[in-house]
Amino acid sequence: MSLAPKGLNVRPITGIPAVQPGDDVAELVLSALLASGETLQQGDVLVVAQKVVSKAEGAIVDLNTITPDDAALKMAETVQKDPRIVHVILGESVRVIRSVPGVLITETHHGFVCANAGVDTSNSLGNGMAILLPRDPDRSARDLQKHIAKKTGVSPSVIISDTFNRPWREGSTNVAIGTSGFVPLDDARGETDDSGEVLRATLVSVADEVASAAQLVMGETGGVPAAIVRGLKLSASNEGSKSLLRDPERDLFR
Amino acid sequence: MSLAPKGLNVRPITGIPAVQPGDDVAELVLSALLASGETLQQGDVLVVAQKVVSKAEGAIVDLNTITPDDAALKMAETVQKDPRIVHVILGESVRVIRSVPGVLITETHHGFVCANAGVDTSNSLGNGMAILLPRDPDRSARDLQKHIAKKTGVSPSVIISDTFNRPWREGSTNVAIGTSGFVPLDDARGETDDSGEVLRATLVSVADEVASAAQLVMGETGGVPAAIVRGLKLSASNEGSKSLLRDPERDLFR
Repeated sequence: MSLAPKGLNVRPITGIPAVQPGDDVAELVLSALLASGETLQQGDVLVVAQKVVSKAEGAIVDLNTITPDDAALKMAETVQKDPRIVHVILGESVRVIRSVPGVLITETHHGFVCANAGVDTSNSLGNGMAILLPRDPDRSARDLQKHIAKKTGVSPSVIISDTFNRPWREGSTNVAIGTSGFVPLDDARGETDDSGEVLRATLVSVADEVASAAQLVMGETGGVPAAIVRGLKLSASNEGSKSLLRDPERDLFR
Repeated sequence: MSLAPKGLNVRPITGIPAVQPGDDVAELVLSALLASGETLQQGDVLVVAQKVVSKAEGAIVDLNTITPDDAALKMAETVQKDPRIVHVILGESVRVIRSVPGVLITETHHGFVCANAGVDTSNSLGNGMAILLPRDPDRSARDLQKHIAKKTGVSPSVIISDTFNRPWREGSTNVAIGTSGFVPLDDARGETDDSGEVLRATLVSVADEVASAAQLVMGETGGVPAAIVRGLKLSASNEGSKSLLRDPERDLFR
């Protein structure tokens, strides 16, 4: 079953200014849409880059205020990174998955397994600042959906996205770290395929595929932090994105 | 830098009949496009599901002809699968990555790390048949591009795609197992971000993101095995998809 039988349209939302702590992301998105003559439609998925949500929520740490503890100092030697950054990363983590020179992969308090616990020092508010992932990206997505519905009467599904690296394959891909309004994991296991046989193990990460589609119009360098994906027939749900996290018990690579 | 500054359009190619060994995939795609009043445009990316390419190329094994060897019999006990299927999987593999009841993850002769070496017994030509990955998916993509260019004068980029599962996250996503015509890995490492800082480690798997976008209109059950992705500004290249394979030396999960 196709989720977009008539095709898909992915539009960049341009003209969103640099976000500051305390900013209202819903308002910034809607203003940018208004300025470009676009409107949200029922059924749209709004994809917003994690970075702008984190900045707006103030999920920012001034590295100059950080005194690395012993664990951070020791790990910093292993991974050859700034001990203050390592201290912040470990503070966001429940478990270290891999640590070798240049690489620190952890499991975050959210349950994400990713490099540096998603902590970003490349695209910061200024020198010496680190941007964390939002504390609760599902809540961020839900709030964004609610605020937009209140302001416009249209209630889009929302994805908060970030680019994660992967084992085995080069290059990052955009994934959904928070969702609101739809079922993120499409379960086709009951369906029959075109030879009439029942599909056995076909769970598709719709949310991650939508995030990846959006990334193609958003780019990496921060100028286009949001996109609209139009044409999907998604199942409505308030469940959030937790179903996208593989149960550690069923994970052979943790 | 956005790869699709004006947005992206993803269209399903409907009306492709069930593919048989020896079929000309280019011809089937073009006939389906003609019947639906669509045309390929310069700059389009044509995404075709691995299954139809494999079927057309005859990459099919009749399990009734397979006598599992000792290694297959032993592994079949471990993973609790049909020893004949395990024999086929091991024949496609250079290395076993993980084997536990219900799960057999290997590295294929192509260099892909995936479940069952990509061997598919769910959507087969009939009972007891297994579909392998194409022998050389880059060549399949290149041939498809060439044949279409010859027939139409338009030379689309081509992706042969398959859905792979991942560690850490639930649900499969569609990835590019073969490419032709474009640079599959976008290297933004020289660019500066919106605060003027140089990006350090931003390689984006454009090919996998395009495959994922296409999957949303293609679905899982085989009825729509191809899609057109329109609006991307990709760098032309004949390099194929090998750059998407992480060097085992740089892989901490193999």
